[in-house]
Amino acid sequence: MMIQHSVIFKLKHASGTAEETAFFDAAKQLAHLPGVLNFQVFKQTSPKNQFDYGLSMEFENQADYDGYSVHPDHEQFIREFWLTNVVDFLEIDYVRLAKP
Amino acid sequence: MMIQHSVIFKLKHASGTAEETAFFDAAKQLAHLPGVLNFQVFKQTSPKNQFDYGLSMEFENQADYDGYSVHPDHEQFIREFWLTNVVDFLEIDYVRLAKP
Repeated sequence: MMIQHSVIFKLKHASGTAEETAFFDAAKQLAHLPGVLNFQVFKQTSPKNQFDYGLSMEFENQADYDGYSVHPDHEQFIREFWLTNVVDFLEIDYVRLAKP
Repeated sequence: MMIQHSVIFKLKHASGTAEETAFFDAAKQLAHLPGVLNFQVFKQTSPKNQFDYGLSMEFENQADYDGYSVHPDHEQFIREFWLTNVVDFLEIDYVRLAKP
């Protein structure tokens, strides 16, 4: 079953800074990891929450998701970019609800 | 510019109750309002947040989004189902970020 994995987040750096650009350049590389489908980067525009950006991707199944999570390049991104640049976030996993 | 509008939320009612079914039956009618594209209903499965469900839709532009927001059927849904059934939620609006 397709899983839509996303994170909505806020960066430590102001918009337009070199640190912000470096963060997104690194994040975009995640699109190329095995199992990652439909990778998207978003600006969050609602004034009703405290976040500024979103990353979204899909996995065909839990095995692909698990493989991504433990992939060395993903773990390196978390260590070198995520933990050092993100000040607040919420992680969301969605599966399509056919019938509630 | 395409806008992806979503809400992640938690219902007052336990899974499988008649109230829950009635809520989602009403929510699904929103898919038919003018301007609403790619309407989806999700189960939220990450243990890293407090929410259980998501609704997602897209609008081609802000005018369509605004028209949806003030549509009488949407306002009725908010009044009769959303305010009475939802105990916690976060509203998210995304636009595609071409280049940060």
